[in-house]
Amino acid sequence: MAVRFARRMEGVRPNAIGDLLRHGADPELVSFAGGYPAPELFPIAELRAVYASLLGGDDRNVLQYTVSHGLPSLRRHIAARMTRDGVTCTPDEVLVLHGAQQGLDLVAKLLLDPGDVVVTENPTFLGALIAFHPYEPVFAPVRMDDDGMDIDDLERVLAANPRARMIYTMPDFQNPMGVTLALERRRRLVELANRFDVLVLEDSPYRDLRFEGGWMPTLKSMDGEGRVVYLGSFSKTLVPGMRLGWAVAGGEIGAKLGLLKLAADTQCSTLNMAAASAYLDRYDLDAHIADVRAAYRRKRDLMLGILRESLPARVGFTNPDGGLFTWLTFPDGFDAAAFMRDEAMPRAKVAFVPGGTFYPVRQEPNHARVNFSGVTDEQIVAGTTRLAGLLRTVLGG
Amino acid sequence: MAVRFARRMEGVRPNAIGDLLRHGADPELVSFAGGYPAPELFPIAELRAVYASLLGGDDRNVLQYTVSHGLPSLRRHIAARMTRDGVTCTPDEVLVLHGAQQGLDLVAKLLLDPGDVVVTENPTFLGALIAFHPYEPVFAPVRMDDDGMDIDDLERVLAANPRARMIYTMPDFQNPMGVTLALERRRRLVELANRFDVLVLEDSPYRDLRFEGGWMPTLKSMDGEGRVVYLGSFSKTLVPGMRLGWAVAGGEIGAKLGLLKLAADTQCSTLNMAAASAYLDRYDLDAHIADVRAAYRRKRDLMLGILRESLPARVGFTNPDGGLFTWLTFPDGFDAAAFMRDEAMPRAKVAFVPGGTFYPVRQEPNHARVNFSGVTDEQIVAGTTRLAGLLRTVLGG
Repeated sequence: MAVRFARRMEGVRPNAIGDLLRHGADPELVSFAGGYPAPELFPIAELRAVYASLLGGDDRNVLQYTVSHGLPSLRRHIAARMTRDGVTCTPDEVLVLHGAQQGLDLVAKLLLDPGDVVVTENPTFLGALIAFHPYEPVFAPVRMDDDGMDIDDLERVLAANPRARMIYTMPDFQNPMGVTLALERRRRLVELANRFDVLVLEDSPYRDLRFEGGWMPTLKSMDGEGRVVYLGSFSKTLVPGMRLGWAVAGGEIGAKLGLLKLAADTQCSTLNMAAASAYLDRYDLDAHIADVRAAYRRKRDLMLGILRESLPARVGFTNPDGGLFTWLTFPDGFDAAAFMRDEAMPRAKVAFVPGGTFYPVRQEPNHARVNFSGVTDEQIVAGTTRLAGLLRTVLGG
Repeated sequence: MAVRFARRMEGVRPNAIGDLLRHGADPELVSFAGGYPAPELFPIAELRAVYASLLGGDDRNVLQYTVSHGLPSLRRHIAARMTRDGVTCTPDEVLVLHGAQQGLDLVAKLLLDPGDVVVTENPTFLGALIAFHPYEPVFAPVRMDDDGMDIDDLERVLAANPRARMIYTMPDFQNPMGVTLALERRRRLVELANRFDVLVLEDSPYRDLRFEGGWMPTLKSMDGEGRVVYLGSFSKTLVPGMRLGWAVAGGEIGAKLGLLKLAADTQCSTLNMAAASAYLDRYDLDAHIADVRAAYRRKRDLMLGILRESLPARVGFTNPDGGLFTWLTFPDGFDAAAFMRDEAMPRAKVAFVPGGTFYPVRQEPNHARVNFSGVTDEQIVAGTTRLAGLLRTVLGG
């Protein structure tokens, strides 16, 4: 059959993520390409107890269908956690999702007609570009620096794009750069969203993974007009394999997202939602997160210490206050993808994500995303040392 | 914020399903409105053992991310089961989904531009209409009888709709009618799909639940041109709460569905996929399904026996060879929705799904979908007797 696919499929193409996942499975390589949490930190004993107890009782509802917005007990837990984080909300405003990724798909589906403009960070999360593409948007990227989006540039971009419908941002420990949106910029971003009447999609899967620096309010907590949709995730705090995230959105936006969730896949796994809820009943997730934070801070320090000492001076890197990634910037004209393919992988047995893929419009070739969460300390030391050494050879000291 | 939503949202409205789920939760009512499997049949002890073993070992990969197409071991099991059922396929042609429902969303996303025509059974599965609506199709319904789609009518509909892109069908124990597409009609349906160059979306979540009559080949097994996408589900054979289904599709269709799965939510729950796979390793799913079939056959016989004896002669009902539902047809002019609201629920404490909601274009008011799988024998006897008695009162003997 020579299928004629829908027009939206023109933007849907194979991309680096699948290949990267395959790299992650190759045992010979030290791969800094993933975005995986550290499996040694998974609370597997607690989860074993939770599943045993859920499946050892007489309540077979944990294996049955439930309501499409998600198990009420889990929504109450999420609403309480969000409220403690400054986002006062009710369980009715929480929609349980298959990871924050599903929120990217559903919000784009809710909002975007072909040709509508999505304002993004530049670079931005590749998974968001993948989720948005089928809705045929035009991307309007905003300049980034060490404090996140350049808000003056954001204002120019919004003014230049009357079809802008939303600002997509990861304010906390951004993927891929690791940078965090400064407090005053948060206020200005929400003001600009109000002024230009656009939705804000605040994607914050790493928010709880802060290593240092003070707590910062979410954009959603500054939202006086119900125009921020917040996306959270248990993938980086609990485990990815339960596939649970959530959206916080009230009013008509929340109601319509709920209808799209029902249309897309009816509901999340009842059993996994019940397990997350039981985990939150019985255990101290924040104490667990404190352990995760400490471990990732150590990994970050280990990696950044080597980068600081061994990278050629002409290679820059960000100093993330949390999250999973640092972002390397090579000299102008450096092709990070060719370097990885021709040098880093064969000669140093190191992989990363060449940065070009994170740019929605004009790809900058001279960057790399480097992950420190999903690798062991030994891999960090060996891989970072080999990578830095190779770069000194290639670029000079 | 006065949000301007995407144009596609015009077709996305609240509907009966949410209300029905709420009915299902009301303990006073005998609700035949659900489509739930019987919880007493869930293999909870086996699943307890499976989860205990997965979480009791040292393999933390069951809690980690995995590949977006689904856990390879589970895809192998599904491919083997499909092959045994006459659909020769490789694990590469299997895409694990969040229930068959997700397949409805992804196939529509793959195929439909606004205004494209989806040919459906009339009536058809409400969840499919809900999944398709955001892609702004035009529905072209095909007449049904006790042997499924009227293929002469299908031919007329295809000839009259040059923008027809797919035929959506549930050939086995259709939702809502419970009828099964006759063998010769299956051959003709695939021939017509080939002739008119349309995709066939074969949705068969109840396929394993046959009570009587011989095995019938799937449409996919008759597909010489790679134009049938088959959707299966573990929700009715194992449990719904793990939220696992699958698509079988090769070639470019399969590849593009995989990309849409990645875009929509990255992957299904690794833990649940590992659990389904381990269940299939250790236990005999077919033996379990035989128990489910025997139990549902008994429930069907119990319900149909009462309907046969007690319904007024002017009310017809289908005699399903499998699945979860029978379909009542009341006299012309009878309003099943008003009857349920004003009579059946207050006077007989019985709920069902008024049939109008299952018609994509012109709603026929004089039908009801009645479920026998998710209710106890006592509820079947009490509820069916009360419903039939009330109908005799309302319609006469």
